[in-house]
Amino acid sequence: MKAYNELLEIHDKLHNYKHLGAIVGWDQEAMMPSGSNTARAKAMAQLDVLIHQESTSTKIGELLDQAQSENLSDEEISSLFEMKRVYESETIVPEELVKAKSLAASKCGHEWKDQRPNNDWKGFLPNLDEVIKLSREEANIRAEKTGLSAYDSLLNLYEPGMNSKNLDVIFDDVKSWLPNLITQIVEKQKSESYIKPQPPFKIDNQKELGLKVMKHLGFDFNKGRIDISAHPFCGGVPEDVRITTRYDENDFMQSLMGTVHETGHARYEQNLPLKYISLPVGTARSMGIHESQSLFFEMQMGRGRPFLESIHGFVQESFGNSDAFAIDNLCKLYNQVQPSLIRVDADEVTYPAHVILRYEIEKALMNGELETKDIPEVWNEKMKMYLGLDTTGDYKNGPMQDVHWTLGLVGYFPSYTLGAMYAAQQFNSVKKVFPDVNENISKGDFSQVFSWLNDNIWKNASLYSTDVLMKNATGESLNPKYFKEHLENRYL
Amino acid sequence: MKAYNELLEIHDKLHNYKHLGAIVGWDQEAMMPSGSNTARAKAMAQLDVLIHQESTSTKIGELLDQAQSENLSDEEISSLFEMKRVYESETIVPEELVKAKSLAASKCGHEWKDQRPNNDWKGFLPNLDEVIKLSREEANIRAEKTGLSAYDSLLNLYEPGMNSKNLDVIFDDVKSWLPNLITQIVEKQKSESYIKPQPPFKIDNQKELGLKVMKHLGFDFNKGRIDISAHPFCGGVPEDVRITTRYDENDFMQSLMGTVHETGHARYEQNLPLKYISLPVGTARSMGIHESQSLFFEMQMGRGRPFLESIHGFVQESFGNSDAFAIDNLCKLYNQVQPSLIRVDADEVTYPAHVILRYEIEKALMNGELETKDIPEVWNEKMKMYLGLDTTGDYKNGPMQDVHWTLGLVGYFPSYTLGAMYAAQQFNSVKKVFPDVNENISKGDFSQVFSWLNDNIWKNASLYSTDVLMKNATGESLNPKYFKEHLENRYL
Repeated sequence: MKAYNELLEIHDKLHNYKHLGAIVGWDQEAMMPSGSNTARAKAMAQLDVLIHQESTSTKIGELLDQAQSENLSDEEISSLFEMKRVYESETIVPEELVKAKSLAASKCGHEWKDQRPNNDWKGFLPNLDEVIKLSREEANIRAEKTGLSAYDSLLNLYEPGMNSKNLDVIFDDVKSWLPNLITQIVEKQKSESYIKPQPPFKIDNQKELGLKVMKHLGFDFNKGRIDISAHPFCGGVPEDVRITTRYDENDFMQSLMGTVHETGHARYEQNLPLKYISLPVGTARSMGIHESQSLFFEMQMGRGRPFLESIHGFVQESFGNSDAFAIDNLCKLYNQVQPSLIRVDADEVTYPAHVILRYEIEKALMNGELETKDIPEVWNEKMKMYLGLDTTGDYKNGPMQDVHWTLGLVGYFPSYTLGAMYAAQQFNSVKKVFPDVNENISKGDFSQVFSWLNDNIWKNASLYSTDVLMKNATGESLNPKYFKEHLENRYL
Repeated sequence: MKAYNELLEIHDKLHNYKHLGAIVGWDQEAMMPSGSNTARAKAMAQLDVLIHQESTSTKIGELLDQAQSENLSDEEISSLFEMKRVYESETIVPEELVKAKSLAASKCGHEWKDQRPNNDWKGFLPNLDEVIKLSREEANIRAEKTGLSAYDSLLNLYEPGMNSKNLDVIFDDVKSWLPNLITQIVEKQKSESYIKPQPPFKIDNQKELGLKVMKHLGFDFNKGRIDISAHPFCGGVPEDVRITTRYDENDFMQSLMGTVHETGHARYEQNLPLKYISLPVGTARSMGIHESQSLFFEMQMGRGRPFLESIHGFVQESFGNSDAFAIDNLCKLYNQVQPSLIRVDADEVTYPAHVILRYEIEKALMNGELETKDIPEVWNEKMKMYLGLDTTGDYKNGPMQDVHWTLGLVGYFPSYTLGAMYAAQQFNSVKKVFPDVNENISKGDFSQVFSWLNDNIWKNASLYSTDVLMKNATGESLNPKYFKEHLENRYL
């Protein structure tokens, strides 16, 4: 058998194992009774060990070498490249470090759940310090083997091909205009009045509304479902996508737009090419591109007037004909801008400030320019500078608010804002190709949008680098100007 | 390390793998969208291969031999015995036969889904013939290695220690009195009138009622849950028990008693000893004992007046104060007896006739005294003899109604009636130990029942043989007279 074909068989097996992990992981968040967690954690850890062993076997290394000299098609060459990239990324770090990091992250994450509500930075610091120390070790090992800087070697785990030199340019530009833009928008919105919708909004009605909107957006219920979890996510496998939301009787708007967001992730997964479904080349291109799909749905389309016009009737069907649901008011409601302390609750204008702050801190941590004990001070400085907010002493709404560093996910944050930028650039291209797209969206006809996304993003999976993907799709590399224009057009 | 301790580690790993399979299997029936089945079947088959490989490794065989001469406690000796029993049972059959049977069963089961509604015995026969042929092969191989008869070697997979010599005595006795008893009861009930509850019964109300009754019966919602599936079952793992039911707006009674039934299975699972949770000795004793727990809940307690008195108020809370829910009427409703064609819909009086018929047919098939093509004729004869019903030409409500033979599960059917008999004998003992148990049950106080079941059945898992378990619990080996007495007391 050709070495490449042997690799296909191994990846098919791995895909099957990952399927089990994805469904059981979804169950843990959406279904599992809490008393079962110990047994579940053990079972999942056992599967993780199995997958790690099988995906880092020396046999794969040998087959990858052999396959290099085999006669392969262009797509097979891309596929082999991705197999190699993933394999090297997984084998580069010694197993003892992987274990030590997993244990430290698990301890830090577990104790954080109690420490955060208690604003207990002092208790949290030694745990975080250990996780960051081990992340640095990992970063240095990766840096040495890849030739990247320490931070970039981690950034590449989530955003292959991106580096901090580019990010610095992009983010420095954002910093030059964002604080001023926020001030202008907040000032403008002060003079605009809107009507607050009156709760309660029955959960059953919210569910029904969410399902209608998912259907509207082409979610394939034959290969996926929506349930409830404490923290909304998109999980499962491409053949069975599981998204979640949460409901609040006092506010239907958050769950609704959260559902639109996760539906964006879901449609990317559901439309990855079946041909490569079990291979690295058949997975989503990067976390940034994944986020671009959810933000395309939620921000570019979802909070725009044409889309809100298209779902406006559904909202009234669920909650009646209140003035609050008049289209003008609905648009205002969905486009409020306000600097705030919590990233996950931030609007799309202030969001990049939260990301840039974290990026700068984690980069400094990895490159040895900052120690964990000094995070709160730097956090506070940057919050003042970017958003004009004081967080002195407020650790729980400051550096203790996210789960990422706690779990050792350093290098992840930039994906959120890269996603927002990719999404703006993509939507701009859609509008160029289909000048009447907004008119169609307002009628609930998304065929132009979906065919563009399918041809340019979804079906390409990881066949091309992010840069080539974006160039093929939009005619140019990532260009943050579209994001800035989008914000100015929508909010000024 | 002691060989026994190495065996503990291997079984811990296997338990973890089986946890994944159990949850993903539950998901397949209760949650999974239908379009995901192909990917799911592949992932589950991959896990089955893994579990089969790991649980039949020669390493386990060597460790089992070594552990024999180690210094073990009595409970460890029981544990080792069960490990050996399971290992031998799994390794006795050559892998090619396991595969061939699995393929044949899968084909037969798949095509059966269309053939049954079409009454297509002719299409079904060659598939069934292949499955039965391979089951015979398996039976003969097992018989040769175990010294049991062909049929008994399969029976032992579900009911270790039971044999057809004993079953013949038990079932011949039942056949001597059951047809006459059925006639008497049907005659008696003809003169009794009752009020039919008036539908619709809202699904939400049925759900709420089911949850109340599960709570009432001590189901641990911290380590389990209930959902909906086409065919109700008890799945999951002891640390996370997943039961299912189905709802019919025209009939709340079936779902309610189905839930009581599955809760019986669930409480057994939830109270298996934590100490042995990952070991063969820590699993349920047999299918018959498992069924005895569900039937103890559903039949011995559930359809008895004291229990119905205890849940009577819940029914009225859910569906109002109709005369149909008066306690006398409720008892009548839950104790109707009527010969019918379908086993799964049968009442507890006619049920044994369905089982004995199947037992006699499958025994004859395995021992080479009957061919598959002749099943319908024998089926028809026996249905006439035991239940007075004619099934000529009605294959779909005759020999095509069950999934067991279709899937190659030959030897399973007796467990149902053994379970009913074990349950009657157990409840008889409970009443002897606690003469006021029915009075307490009617007040909703099940503490006597649960402490008896826990001490005598649940916590003993597979530490003792079924015979010793029943002797310790009730003072004697299986004695079918308690089942007969129960039926006469309740229905005559």
